[in-house]
Amino acid sequence: MRNLSMMTDLYELTMMNGYSALGTGDKTAVFDLFFRQQGQISYAVAAGLQQTIEYINNLHFDEEDIEYLRREAGLCDRFLEELRSFRFTGDVFAVPEGTVVFPDEPILVVRAPLSQAQLIEPAVLNIINHQTLIATKASRVKKSAGRAAVSEFGLRRAQGPDAGIYGARASIIGGCSGTSNVLAGQMFDIPVKGTMAHSWIMSFGSELEAFRRFAEIYPDNTLLLVDTYDTLRSGVPNAIKVFDELKAKGRKPVGIRLDSGDLAYLSKKARRMLDEAGHTDAIIFASCDLDEYVISSLNEQGAKIDAYGVGTRLITSESMPSLGGVYKLAELTENGVRVPKIKISDTHEKITNPGFKTLYRVYDGDGKAFADLIALADERFDVTAPLTLTHPTMRWKSTTLEKYSMRRLLVPVFEGGKQVYESPKLKDIAAYAVSEKDSFWDEYMRNVNPEIYKVDLSDELYALKSRLIAEHTGGRA
Amino acid sequence: MRNLSMMTDLYELTMMNGYSALGTGDKTAVFDLFFRQQGQISYAVAAGLQQTIEYINNLHFDEEDIEYLRREAGLCDRFLEELRSFRFTGDVFAVPEGTVVFPDEPILVVRAPLSQAQLIEPAVLNIINHQTLIATKASRVKKSAGRAAVSEFGLRRAQGPDAGIYGARASIIGGCSGTSNVLAGQMFDIPVKGTMAHSWIMSFGSELEAFRRFAEIYPDNTLLLVDTYDTLRSGVPNAIKVFDELKAKGRKPVGIRLDSGDLAYLSKKARRMLDEAGHTDAIIFASCDLDEYVISSLNEQGAKIDAYGVGTRLITSESMPSLGGVYKLAELTENGVRVPKIKISDTHEKITNPGFKTLYRVYDGDGKAFADLIALADERFDVTAPLTLTHPTMRWKSTTLEKYSMRRLLVPVFEGGKQVYESPKLKDIAAYAVSEKDSFWDEYMRNVNPEIYKVDLSDELYALKSRLIAEHTGGRA
Repeated sequence: MRNLSMMTDLYELTMMNGYSALGTGDKTAVFDLFFRQQGQISYAVAAGLQQTIEYINNLHFDEEDIEYLRREAGLCDRFLEELRSFRFTGDVFAVPEGTVVFPDEPILVVRAPLSQAQLIEPAVLNIINHQTLIATKASRVKKSAGRAAVSEFGLRRAQGPDAGIYGARASIIGGCSGTSNVLAGQMFDIPVKGTMAHSWIMSFGSELEAFRRFAEIYPDNTLLLVDTYDTLRSGVPNAIKVFDELKAKGRKPVGIRLDSGDLAYLSKKARRMLDEAGHTDAIIFASCDLDEYVISSLNEQGAKIDAYGVGTRLITSESMPSLGGVYKLAELTENGVRVPKIKISDTHEKITNPGFKTLYRVYDGDGKAFADLIALADERFDVTAPLTLTHPTMRWKSTTLEKYSMRRLLVPVFEGGKQVYESPKLKDIAAYAVSEKDSFWDEYMRNVNPEIYKVDLSDELYALKSRLIAEHTGGRA
Repeated sequence: MRNLSMMTDLYELTMMNGYSALGTGDKTAVFDLFFRQQGQISYAVAAGLQQTIEYINNLHFDEEDIEYLRREAGLCDRFLEELRSFRFTGDVFAVPEGTVVFPDEPILVVRAPLSQAQLIEPAVLNIINHQTLIATKASRVKKSAGRAAVSEFGLRRAQGPDAGIYGARASIIGGCSGTSNVLAGQMFDIPVKGTMAHSWIMSFGSELEAFRRFAEIYPDNTLLLVDTYDTLRSGVPNAIKVFDELKAKGRKPVGIRLDSGDLAYLSKKARRMLDEAGHTDAIIFASCDLDEYVISSLNEQGAKIDAYGVGTRLITSESMPSLGGVYKLAELTENGVRVPKIKISDTHEKITNPGFKTLYRVYDGDGKAFADLIALADERFDVTAPLTLTHPTMRWKSTTLEKYSMRRLLVPVFEGGKQVYESPKLKDIAAYAVSEKDSFWDEYMRNVNPEIYKVDLSDELYALKSRLIAEHTGGRA
């Protein structure tokens, strides 16, 4: 396994060294990972926990790391000695991968000695931000595709190998049903997809010959790429010839792939040509600069497309290539007393939520998700009594539910440095993500102008937050 | 070293298996890697060759890979046996990292048995596309920053670990002078940068105490983050107190860091406060959602910023998160005869350039880059005679140079599978990239509305291309 322990920002080590010098590095700290409202994202599909677990389990510094830091990082010898025996000994709570999550709510909470919690910040953010971003983008693409299957085809345009590999995994969590990336398929047991490139066609004397040779070798996997020379005048007619030949031999042709041009027009024309030739079962697979918006437009135009291959715009989340997840100090134990911490900002929405918290999803009488509730971890709720939910800033906005149920979304992942959570298999995570999305009214899940889902603060948390704001601002809040 | 051999698209293996069945996989093929005009990019800074070399040197399939492919990929036993002894035996030519390159010109050429050339396509594209993208973005950011140093600070928002690590390296090639990413610093000998986060400040009873403790531990590295509570009312005054104390002890304060708010306004105000307190040497370091456009705007507003930390928008190349590099078949040896190949498209600009080619840079009498010339690899040029350069499609546009020099940009990297090129040290690559940019008139290098640099085709190549278009279209071209 790759050792990513050194994959941190220098300032984390600089601060750890400082805490070591001051003897404060062992104070228990609580950090929340959350993202803020951003761009077109209304919800996100959490991903990246599995790699985060591997990273934390593997944390250690080798001799060469210590020597590098001694030379380059301006750190004290005592601290460098401490790093030799560095292990993560804290607690981690997180939402399982595939959980639908919303802005401002903690999706991962670290409670650990301050130094340890600092060290892991950049890597944990890197992994969760990336994979949650891609799972979310895949979910949006799949939403537009509806019943049509979506395969992830973006390896060659991904931002490096990991982006291709873990992006493929995240795409499956988001709703894709396969990937072109063989290594991702091998690592995560993902169905791998793909047949031929233009270079296959070009390596033969003619398109027809290229199709025939392919059909001879793969008589049960003949998805033929028809746009190398001229889709409607050459590609589709040649594909139909080869499909006729396959049928005559009792084989079942798979279909054609369109990879350029006006996909709406070409798919409708090609569908008619295939149908008229009796190949009503042959599917039309489309690729070429697709995303959720293009697919929605193809749907509107009545395009006849049965499955999609989505590359660049999925694997890079082109329309929003980063999820701005942050990792903020929420509590610090000082002299044995847990002290909640807050980050003040001129923008009300950017003020953090203090304290060691947890996250509930509240379901209404129909069993549909109604609101999420951020609460202090040790708050107790009497689920036999009505529940009043109140807006996080506009407290006059509140709703009382008589019939409801609550579910704790953050589960223990590490306790005292020991892993206590096992990731499900990827296909089970993907199935869970589908059930998660099904638990929301569709208005929250649509891609364009979705309803804003309620994420509320408990009364206790709100009171704590108000008190800390007042303390910090001398009552100006 | 990680084995990325399985990081390919399934269709490459499907085609290789087909070539194996047909006995055509050993035909020598030539593929060109190039990118097309895209978004705001007028030039690019080539990067990624070093990781490409490592990938190719390491190509092999382990027993578990073969078994995975046997189970999942629908390939023939004979082909799977061939994979056991798979090694790359071909030639690779590429522009050195740091070279300034332009749309449509081959920046990497593979001449290898068809099967091998296909296998490596996705990984080579992934690596070169990503790193060239980030080096180019860094170059644009540095262009706006002018003499102010730029550090890469994007690890936590990068698209996975590799994007953070290799993105940091690419940023150095593009013009950054440091990174926050310690692992990248260690792997590539990059200066690492960083001091403190907001959590440092918040972990103390007061901002002043947090600054004082930091200055005690790092008396020669006191870059203080001043925006945790209130930049001008709290942060800068507290920093000045600590700077005064440091000066009294004979130390030299470094400066302050602004990480939120209106950077133009805050930097001007903070500059005046620092100057009035006698800290004219203290620098102002700025970070917060920066890119080349924001930095240009800060310059226009007269912001007083000495150095920048650039994160998300650099490490993801947010304004254009992929470089659309492609890899196209240009030649195939059939029955011992080299046959040039062309991909026809309805769009003239998307028709590929056929044949085994090379790339020259032509310098004018001032020693400045005048045009690039794509030519067939075996064309010879008499550099004592005048040189006529002709537009790639509008052939009536031409220029004749009397005094000029030519430089071959593609250098041999692998010959017969053997590595024949050693990557320079990263700092030498970065220095070369600076000299590359200096060799162009500034009009080509500016970020907004740059002049389009000429990339021409030699007469021989143009004649070949015209002939192939005519053949493919029955003279319709």
